[in-house]
Amino acid sequence: MIDILDFDNMLFMIPIAAVIALLFALYFFRNIWSRDKGTPEMQKISNAIETGAMAYLKRQYKTIGIISIILAAVLALAGLIDSFKEYLGPMVAVAFLIGAGFSILSGYIGMRISVNANIRTASAATVSFKDAFVCSFRGGAISGIAVSALSLVGLFAVVFVYDAIISETMTKTLHAVVGYAFGASFAALFAQLGGGIYTKAADVGADLVGKVEAGIPEDDPRNPAVIADLVGDNVGDCAGRGADIFESTAAEIIGSMVIGTAVIAAAGGLGLSYNWVFLPLVLMAFGLIASLIGIFVVRLKDEDSDVFKMLNRGYYLTIALVVASLAITTYYMLNKECELWYFFFGAGIVGIILGLAIVYITQYYTGNHKPVKGIAKSSETGPATNVIEGISVGLESTVLPGICIVVAILVSYSLGYLASPGGVDEASKIAFGLYGTAIGTIAMLASSAFILAEDTFGPITDNAGGIAEMSNQPEEVRKRTDKLDSAGNTTKALTKGYAMASAALAAFLLFAAFFEIVAEIRGETITEVFNVNIGDPRIFCGALIGAVLVYFFASLAIRAVGKAAGEMIEEVRRQFREDPGIMEGTSEPNYAGCVDIATRGALKAMVVPALLPILVPVSFGLIYRFMFPDISYMAVGALIMVGTITGILMANFLNNGGGAWDNAKKFIEEGNHGGKRSPAHAAAVVGDTVGDPFKDTAGPSIHVLVKLLSTICLVTAVLFVVV
Amino acid sequence: MIDILDFDNMLFMIPIAAVIALLFALYFFRNIWSRDKGTPEMQKISNAIETGAMAYLKRQYKTIGIISIILAAVLALAGLIDSFKEYLGPMVAVAFLIGAGFSILSGYIGMRISVNANIRTASAATVSFKDAFVCSFRGGAISGIAVSALSLVGLFAVVFVYDAIISETMTKTLHAVVGYAFGASFAALFAQLGGGIYTKAADVGADLVGKVEAGIPEDDPRNPAVIADLVGDNVGDCAGRGADIFESTAAEIIGSMVIGTAVIAAAGGLGLSYNWVFLPLVLMAFGLIASLIGIFVVRLKDEDSDVFKMLNRGYYLTIALVVASLAITTYYMLNKECELWYFFFGAGIVGIILGLAIVYITQYYTGNHKPVKGIAKSSETGPATNVIEGISVGLESTVLPGICIVVAILVSYSLGYLASPGGVDEASKIAFGLYGTAIGTIAMLASSAFILAEDTFGPITDNAGGIAEMSNQPEEVRKRTDKLDSAGNTTKALTKGYAMASAALAAFLLFAAFFEIVAEIRGETITEVFNVNIGDPRIFCGALIGAVLVYFFASLAIRAVGKAAGEMIEEVRRQFREDPGIMEGTSEPNYAGCVDIATRGALKAMVVPALLPILVPVSFGLIYRFMFPDISYMAVGALIMVGTITGILMANFLNNGGGAWDNAKKFIEEGNHGGKRSPAHAAAVVGDTVGDPFKDTAGPSIHVLVKLLSTICLVTAVLFVVV
Repeated sequence: MIDILDFDNMLFMIPIAAVIALLFALYFFRNIWSRDKGTPEMQKISNAIETGAMAYLKRQYKTIGIISIILAAVLALAGLIDSFKEYLGPMVAVAFLIGAGFSILSGYIGMRISVNANIRTASAATVSFKDAFVCSFRGGAISGIAVSALSLVGLFAVVFVYDAIISETMTKTLHAVVGYAFGASFAALFAQLGGGIYTKAADVGADLVGKVEAGIPEDDPRNPAVIADLVGDNVGDCAGRGADIFESTAAEIIGSMVIGTAVIAAAGGLGLSYNWVFLPLVLMAFGLIASLIGIFVVRLKDEDSDVFKMLNRGYYLTIALVVASLAITTYYMLNKECELWYFFFGAGIVGIILGLAIVYITQYYTGNHKPVKGIAKSSETGPATNVIEGISVGLESTVLPGICIVVAILVSYSLGYLASPGGVDEASKIAFGLYGTAIGTIAMLASSAFILAEDTFGPITDNAGGIAEMSNQPEEVRKRTDKLDSAGNTTKALTKGYAMASAALAAFLLFAAFFEIVAEIRGETITEVFNVNIGDPRIFCGALIGAVLVYFFASLAIRAVGKAAGEMIEEVRRQFREDPGIMEGTSEPNYAGCVDIATRGALKAMVVPALLPILVPVSFGLIYRFMFPDISYMAVGALIMVGTITGILMANFLNNGGGAWDNAKKFIEEGNHGGKRSPAHAAAVVGDTVGDPFKDTAGPSIHVLVKLLSTICLVTAVLFVVV
Repeated sequence: MIDILDFDNMLFMIPIAAVIALLFALYFFRNIWSRDKGTPEMQKISNAIETGAMAYLKRQYKTIGIISIILAAVLALAGLIDSFKEYLGPMVAVAFLIGAGFSILSGYIGMRISVNANIRTASAATVSFKDAFVCSFRGGAISGIAVSALSLVGLFAVVFVYDAIISETMTKTLHAVVGYAFGASFAALFAQLGGGIYTKAADVGADLVGKVEAGIPEDDPRNPAVIADLVGDNVGDCAGRGADIFESTAAEIIGSMVIGTAVIAAAGGLGLSYNWVFLPLVLMAFGLIASLIGIFVVRLKDEDSDVFKMLNRGYYLTIALVVASLAITTYYMLNKECELWYFFFGAGIVGIILGLAIVYITQYYTGNHKPVKGIAKSSETGPATNVIEGISVGLESTVLPGICIVVAILVSYSLGYLASPGGVDEASKIAFGLYGTAIGTIAMLASSAFILAEDTFGPITDNAGGIAEMSNQPEEVRKRTDKLDSAGNTTKALTKGYAMASAALAAFLLFAAFFEIVAEIRGETITEVFNVNIGDPRIFCGALIGAVLVYFFASLAIRAVGKAAGEMIEEVRRQFREDPGIMEGTSEPNYAGCVDIATRGALKAMVVPALLPILVPVSFGLIYRFMFPDISYMAVGALIMVGTITGILMANFLNNGGGAWDNAKKFIEEGNHGGKRSPAHAAAVVGDTVGDPFKDTAGPSIHVLVKLLSTICLVTAVLFVVV
């Protein structure tokens, strides 16, 4: 039984963090809601966005809900089969539903806040830049806080209750709780993919006809796709990203806790406490408080303050507080049982540095540096050379992160390995090594509330800009929102780097959790079963299937955007053709038609790719269970691991390639290589459009995909293991 | 000592095949050389092509030569170090130089024949389609025969001589002979990459300014880049592909032979004969004869004969003869020592079927079927949707081949495993399983002379068309060469599918050969050392580095084309601008300027990427040797294996994406979606241009890269193994 009043395990920090988070969220909420809601014209636009977004989310959640219930039923019924009953059944099914439900709820909260903050930001922009920034950043902050707190508290509650009900070992409890991680990843993949298709179909469609063909500015009210585009920012960037971060946190904390149980089992003779299991939860609680403080200090002094300087101040404060929390938790929770506890502190620092390093590398490849300037220059010779250069930059941008990840894994693993207490045998040291990577991952993720606040701030400002443009605000208002929008674009790109780094470092942790469960099922220790020999051709085939799966998924995601965008283009062209009054500004375009196309396109196209990472590993594992029972779980392991390697690199390629194209276009728009309306600009628009589904649909979805691959296998491990 | 007169080992087939090949080649050679060399105008163009190609190859071979000599010196000197002397030293260095030299020679022969056949094909086209086809196909055939025969005979000669000099076990001999495979792969990568950059820089440059900007037809003599473009076909498609197929054959036969020794060692008690080692050589000898017969029957009945029907007749005859040879060799060489010899016959059939299946899948994705038509349709909404759709098709096209490869590996491995003679223990059965995949690979490769003939036929007809166009031949002549050119494009795409399939199936064979050498060094059996547990984070990092390497290489290769093409475009624009007489046809453009840009661009850009697959695994292995000596060779194994998986999928994506874009453009040119000069056509040209470096530079180079990764590690294995 978990004793929350046992001060040694520090679990009391979780309710404390939750209460503080609630207070902060309420404060920001009141602060935003008390602001001016703008002119009736602004409200009309904002309402249209809200209606569109709600209509989409309602249908999306319905689809997710139906599939979730079917999956939950399967999980519950599988428990009736005798050999599965210990690892599947109603407890897992309920955890799955709670995980999926909370994931959806996170996205929903993010979206609701965003649609309310955007209009207030637009209104504040009529007065001052400073106010507009505070309003949009705090809007993002509520989202970040809500998602992080929900993830932490929800998970803790499930662990607490399940522990009481199952009342056996923590290992048994966690086997049921993995359903929560699976549910979270499952819902997140749908949300991220569906939202990603929606937002890019609308964006590409609006841009290609509006900006390129008709020559009207972005967010011009004459563009029939403009409302769909603004809705897309909410359902894709806010709701999608919220669900994504929620599932990252959930999956990675559970993975770390499972590794904690593996450490205790491996060092059986030492009688280690559950502190090893709870440390990830406690560290995240501290991290949430650190992020809150970081968020709180972000404010502008005056109209000319540098947004990035302020954001960075908050970020570095958060990081400093996380480092302090890391020292406190590792010392307080581990020092009695592990002389070299500070090696785990070191492993955490490795994770934090990796996060920073990847954010900087992302900035180098997608900011105004050599790669982006190279793409801009290649635009002079046309769209083809622009696309060639952009793809080349995207591919290259995987190299440094890959090397950083390798170094981080090796160092954090070695630190954990070396920290093993005396009396632990060679094989069991591996469990301590894995725990080192787990601490690295959690330390990196501890600042996620701050990161998510920065990320959600982007679409809020984007929407505010759209509202300002559509309600014909004076030039200076639009200038303020543009400045915010540009800052938001950069923070968005950085978040993707961060999400990628966390997915990469966490990967190992989830593999290890999978093998810990396999070990439990087989009644062995993790070091006995954690063997994925891809030198065995049958296991190698698992690896190949994992890699192919990622390619197939990427193909479907990218194509879905192309297809829906094509339909959007046809619709906008049709409206312009059939009603010339639209371009003249005398009649209002049919916004709802475009919203409907994006909605249908996204819903239709998301189901098959989102089911792939569930159906492929499970059916592969079942086939192998019958064909090669003695190695089936290893082949599934190879599928997950090589699928993850492929996914990380592919996501990195897509995200950075897309980001670089985007900024190359902006670089030209700043007056380089002929500036706006030059042939180079036209070429850069092509690259930017190609990059849209890369960076906002396929790339971020693949982050979720790799984690879903692991969590589905965590839950269904018993199917592939023949004892 | 190898006894060539021992009829049991059937090695006598090798000189027989060589003599027959020589006779055929001479016959075709006389047949072509006796043909008309065309008008003086044609000769002038042909000479310009030959001069450009020779100038490039001379410089390219010089670069390869210098680096080869340095590498050979390193290999030779490393033998002075005591612990390396058994596996490195002058014997390996000499084998390396012979392999590299023969690889270059293959490319050179292919190119010489091509530049002589193209003008005769152009001249024949003034008379009849039938003659033009025979001339170009036989030109390609000489190339195919020469490369295959050189590969087989060269390898056999080295094995024979080394066996006599070393006069120890066959295993020791093969350890030195692997240098030959490394040399072949090494030179092939330079040839394929350098040639690929050259040809696409010229092609992209010529097309973008000529066809798109200036609106003149392809191969128009007014285009300053036209000669460079025609030279590119020779140095890229002929010389590059020749070296590629040479190294495939060499590396894969040696790999199979090494596995043969592993089988003998694993079944130590049974005293198996060297037939298991020689079978791959003998089967290739039969395959060469089969291809010769297949080539011989390809001829057109009359002017309206269907080219593909004739080519297919030859191909299917070749396949039938290979199947017969497979039955003869497996029965005659294995039946006395293996009751279930026909399981190996079955494994060979699996390889042949895989080859056919992948060729069909390639045809589906790059021919006029649903995917290509989808790209054509998406061109209606502009270049961005065209590129998005093309990338999506390319990614998707990896799925079916991936599944086919998985099935082929599983079946051929299982057949070999099940065929293990009685008395072999469980662990040693793995060696027989691997031998099954080896037979599959060799059976697939046995028809390579025919495939290469079909492939080289493409650039010959392409050049002939160019010569006809530039020498202002009448419309009907151009029509004949166009018809040939279109057939050549299709065969070229199919060859790439075939090369990919062979690289994929061969991959396992080369990994196994690597571990067999590791086993020798450690004094263990292959089944004891063949463990690549990517569950160990340190080994996992090797896997990640392997994957990153492929991305980096692809990035550099694609960028090199973009950069050189950009320079080419500037040069062509400059010439048009400074001398308006060029467009009016009154003054001759400066062809040499463009040839020079392509030459410099290719030479400058090829060195770094071509050295990557040598430097990365060796330095990674050396770092690991010192950091983690007990698992260093396993981490190198993971690097090779996951590098290969990534490479196969990436190459497939690039090749098929590029091929599909190309044909989507042609589909529009046939009058669909508005036909030539429509906006859809302009969009399709962008996609086609993006696809150029994909399908003709990066994609085919990655085929070679994955094999080079294995062969370099085969040679340097002793560096990573701590006994």
